[in-house]
Amino acid sequence: MLPPGATLGILGGGQLGRYMAIVAQQRGFRVAVLDPDPDAPAHQVAHERVIAAYDDPAALERLAQLSQAVTTEFENVPASSLAPFLDRNIPVRPGAKALATCQDRIAEKTLVNAAGIETAPWHAVHSDQDLGMALAALGGEGILKTSRSGYDGKGQARVRSLDEARAAFGRFGSVPCVLEGVVPFALECSVLVARDAHGRSHTLPVCENIHSHHILDVTICPARVSEAAARAMRSRSARLAQELEYVGHLAVEFFVLPDQTVVVNELAPRPHNSGHLTIDTALHSQFEQHVRCIAGWNSLPYELLHPAAAMANLLGDLWEHGEPLWDRLAEFPEVRLHLYGKRAPRPGRKMGHLTAWADSVAEAERRVRDAREALTRPG
Amino acid sequence: MLPPGATLGILGGGQLGRYMAIVAQQRGFRVAVLDPDPDAPAHQVAHERVIAAYDDPAALERLAQLSQAVTTEFENVPASSLAPFLDRNIPVRPGAKALATCQDRIAEKTLVNAAGIETAPWHAVHSDQDLGMALAALGGEGILKTSRSGYDGKGQARVRSLDEARAAFGRFGSVPCVLEGVVPFALECSVLVARDAHGRSHTLPVCENIHSHHILDVTICPARVSEAAARAMRSRSARLAQELEYVGHLAVEFFVLPDQTVVVNELAPRPHNSGHLTIDTALHSQFEQHVRCIAGWNSLPYELLHPAAAMANLLGDLWEHGEPLWDRLAEFPEVRLHLYGKRAPRPGRKMGHLTAWADSVAEAERRVRDAREALTRPG
Repeated sequence: MLPPGATLGILGGGQLGRYMAIVAQQRGFRVAVLDPDPDAPAHQVAHERVIAAYDDPAALERLAQLSQAVTTEFENVPASSLAPFLDRNIPVRPGAKALATCQDRIAEKTLVNAAGIETAPWHAVHSDQDLGMALAALGGEGILKTSRSGYDGKGQARVRSLDEARAAFGRFGSVPCVLEGVVPFALECSVLVARDAHGRSHTLPVCENIHSHHILDVTICPARVSEAAARAMRSRSARLAQELEYVGHLAVEFFVLPDQTVVVNELAPRPHNSGHLTIDTALHSQFEQHVRCIAGWNSLPYELLHPAAAMANLLGDLWEHGEPLWDRLAEFPEVRLHLYGKRAPRPGRKMGHLTAWADSVAEAERRVRDAREALTRPG
Repeated sequence: MLPPGATLGILGGGQLGRYMAIVAQQRGFRVAVLDPDPDAPAHQVAHERVIAAYDDPAALERLAQLSQAVTTEFENVPASSLAPFLDRNIPVRPGAKALATCQDRIAEKTLVNAAGIETAPWHAVHSDQDLGMALAALGGEGILKTSRSGYDGKGQARVRSLDEARAAFGRFGSVPCVLEGVVPFALECSVLVARDAHGRSHTLPVCENIHSHHILDVTICPARVSEAAARAMRSRSARLAQELEYVGHLAVEFFVLPDQTVVVNELAPRPHNSGHLTIDTALHSQFEQHVRCIAGWNSLPYELLHPAAAMANLLGDLWEHGEPLWDRLAEFPEVRLHLYGKRAPRPGRKMGHLTAWADSVAEAERRVRDAREALTRPG
């Protein structure tokens, strides 16, 4: 258990790293961030800034010298980047096994299924031959996804014929892929799990995620699913955290079918966009949980403070016609604004989010949507 | 109204500046801090660090170049330090008038009384002759306080005779003082006021402050006072903010007498230790309110999210026998820990605080006291 005053190292300086840093500092920890961008969101708030590529040996050495424990804000960390920490017995949390598994769809789905937990039907694709067999097995259509490095719909293609599948596989450079069967889901959910080094895990009530153009748009909590489905998602997520020997905050994404059966979509070994609503509306935030677990402290009960909560992302698109009308938020005193300090509001770029709570998810969702809409509509 | 992305300058890098910085950054502002200590709590989290004395002309120039608005975390700022900002039309909030008034007890009490608001009886003391007359007028005893630069009981002496009064006045270097009559108060309270540039102010329900050795020990909210007393304190505080043409967060300290009449003790033109409970337990924190007002945004409703809240300071004394037993906090999952990143836990030094909420102030107070006690008692 690291005492306050110890330094936590964070690989990655985006908004997730930024909130990890803010929370760690509020608990008295020091924070060192490694990110190549000197103006990265987390560098802006960090105590020690290491400005270098994630695979720069000297920079990793420097971070290892500074840190008593280290974590990552994204799953695509090369294993070689973890070596300087492991060599010095500096705890890396989540650990190498969890990262290696979650950065590779084939390994991840294999682990999930091996734990007796359902995913969409899938096949590993390493060649055109694999692709043909997989497509046939899935009835001639599916979603081709690169096994590594995809996010927000990138590295994915819906394919409805062998020609389309081959074209997509070629476009992806014939790297290892998975072909997934199309699941006719009713909605998408995520379970946020905090698991500490003692193996105790806590899950938040299930979040329901509404996407737009493959990017998370709105999250509401608790999800509008049956109690049995919610229970199944929470218990399976805790089980997966255990299988991964996970320490830190994990998000497990699910598809919920019309009959309320659930299948795992994918895992995110870190705080997650859908968990941003925990900052303002839960007893402890996902970043609090993550930082505690990284530092070897116990995870904490994971509860909403209100009957319902909602979060709406603010993408760069909102800046299309100039600065959003921030003064409009005066009409929404109960909606909280979060911005990540990014200078360039490109379309699709996550610039910030809004959160609200209410007595019902419908009302919480209405609040964040109304407030977001007001930002581009003169009053 | 400054848009997110603008830089707020903060004179002073203690825990108040640190929380201003954290909140400003969460709302997308950038933060530049001026403090002579490179390891000051706010420097640890700030985007731009100006490490220099508060009256260093080059450093003030640098802060003025960086900042679109500037604020202070303590009242004892020399007027000359504000000149570089005022010269460039950079808003200084709270303004020069409020700072000049609140850094001088004589000016402050004069303004309060001129607004028709009661203080303890007091007399300005510039000479031994003044002192003799003041002591006689107050019945032979009182509290001598330096007019400037006092805090946490420093620059104060209880005097019961002319000899004691003269000795204290001499010890203070015969600087201008006030001699105050001793008020037999039942309890001490504070009102937190957020007033924006449009003149709209909001007050939190009254806080009750329990001191130990002249340092704030525990705050509970709402205070255990009559409704009429609470109403009087809130309305007088809002009136004082108006008299000061105040923009930002102001704290007004009161004495409440056994018959529930109230008199103003002193003003703090900034977020205040008693307002730390707002971070976890109010709709918007005192730092949120301060930052919004500094940036020219509207102040927001100032309400508790729970029936009652409490805060207990963690002073350096807690480290007397070594590192506090942080793992004991696992037994208090609803108590929030805050630490300010200070390396040296000297006795009396404010290192952090705990907050909790509950259905009653008695229960909230019990929670923070029990958690604090556990920190030094092996489980």
